[in-house]
Amino acid sequence: MSRTAYLNGEFLPLDEARVPVMDRGFLFADGIYEVAAVLHGRLVDNAGHLARLDRSLSEIGIRNPHSAEEWERLEKELVERNGVREGLVYLQVTRGVAERDFSYPKGDVAPTVVMFTQEKSIVNNPLAETGARAITVPDLRWKRRDIKSVALLAQVIAKQQAAEAGVAEAFMVEDGVVTEGSSSTVFIVTKGGALVTRPLSHAVLPGITRKAVLALAEETGLAFEERLINARELPEAAEAFYTSASAFVMPVVEIDGKALGDGRPGPVARRLRELYFAFAETSES
Amino acid sequence: MSRTAYLNGEFLPLDEARVPVMDRGFLFADGIYEVAAVLHGRLVDNAGHLARLDRSLSEIGIRNPHSAEEWERLEKELVERNGVREGLVYLQVTRGVAERDFSYPKGDVAPTVVMFTQEKSIVNNPLAETGARAITVPDLRWKRRDIKSVALLAQVIAKQQAAEAGVAEAFMVEDGVVTEGSSSTVFIVTKGGALVTRPLSHAVLPGITRKAVLALAEETGLAFEERLINARELPEAAEAFYTSASAFVMPVVEIDGKALGDGRPGPVARRLRELYFAFAETSES
Repeated sequence: MSRTAYLNGEFLPLDEARVPVMDRGFLFADGIYEVAAVLHGRLVDNAGHLARLDRSLSEIGIRNPHSAEEWERLEKELVERNGVREGLVYLQVTRGVAERDFSYPKGDVAPTVVMFTQEKSIVNNPLAETGARAITVPDLRWKRRDIKSVALLAQVIAKQQAAEAGVAEAFMVEDGVVTEGSSSTVFIVTKGGALVTRPLSHAVLPGITRKAVLALAEETGLAFEERLINARELPEAAEAFYTSASAFVMPVVEIDGKALGDGRPGPVARRLRELYFAFAETSES
Repeated sequence: MSRTAYLNGEFLPLDEARVPVMDRGFLFADGIYEVAAVLHGRLVDNAGHLARLDRSLSEIGIRNPHSAEEWERLEKELVERNGVREGLVYLQVTRGVAERDFSYPKGDVAPTVVMFTQEKSIVNNPLAETGARAITVPDLRWKRRDIKSVALLAQVIAKQQAAEAGVAEAFMVEDGVVTEGSSSTVFIVTKGGALVTRPLSHAVLPGITRKAVLALAEETGLAFEERLINARELPEAAEAFYTSASAFVMPVVEIDGKALGDGRPGPVARRLRELYFAFAETSES
């Protein structure tokens, strides 16, 4: 059975959800997206995703077509219509359909709204048991990575490099420092025991899972530092992991072919993964 | 009457040309485009555009679905069906439709092919008579600008800044030097009489019109330099102009509110514009 998607006010079979070629999302990557996890049929930490959506849209001058309450109602209906117990809700808003011209269209053009779901095993993701492998790649992206836009070609290339290397994630490096994963936030634990991730700026996406994990670290008395991570620190780290809405907290056991620690998921990553699952259940909506 | 578009083997009304939301062009900006001018109902310098299309596709691993001969036949048919005498042909190729996942889809996914036309006054563009005004803006783009991808959000933002300033083009500046216009190549003529444009690299798009203009300069004994242009040189320039498939050679008479020379199109820009029109007519196919 085909999934049900949502397009501009209508629930319809995903196969029938089509946008005009003149949609600025298709011609200019002129749009914003978000992905929220679904656990036990409920949305995880969704308020954070909807707040970030609102901010991203605002940064590029697209009117947010829905209130957070409306978004959540639509997302929940989509999850229910698809019977998703565990997986993702994807949503995208573009500047809409207009004659092709780089500058924003004049007049009141309605944004395009698309949503669909993906079933995915999150809790029992086998990768979390063995730990993931990663490679480092150059960060080719633009300078406003705090905006979660659909201009994702650089991330596509990075993830493809990871796929061709047979690993799960690509850690992007710029000027010798780690920015983030191709679709995740990077953390390391130094041999000195410090939990480290990069501070927020225009250079990285403000990760929703990152934020929750840092709050959990703080609550449990786990010290952390927000500072730049030199790429040379990666092979020397005691542990590494990445966070994202779909991976939650994913231990990394090998980077660029070199095993970290004993080559198994580290205790800090495992602990934070457990804590995040508990948080995810309490944050469900 | 609606324009006729081309989509995956079919000519159809533009209003009916729609792509699935799962098209990677829509979700990831995972696609390439080209724009060629139409003059007297014929394509201008089209071989260069099709060669660049082929290179861009190759750089991101998308199979070129057509030979140059096939592309040109389809473009000509589209121009004829729309009765375009003067304007543009736009074409876009994406990696196709697949379940959403950053890395390239496995198996043989057919690329999506879209084409449409736009009528536009090129020869008698009134802006060329008065000269265009420009502003400088930060270059926010990614690091592979030699690939003509549809990940254009940074260019959209730049052109919108120009529109809000009431000017025609935004010259993008990075680390103090001019990269290019938001949809054009930048040239200056120094007070010493040197014609200058930036050399090709990953930092700029290899402009098809740029190449033709440099060849025309060479043929007519006009000396030029390919070197970086410091942003501080702009207000001191005797002339400036930009080139693109749709603007041809466009004189610039003001940058960031400061008039260049006597505030009118300069002799080098006017001469190259004339030469380019003559070249365009001989290069038509």
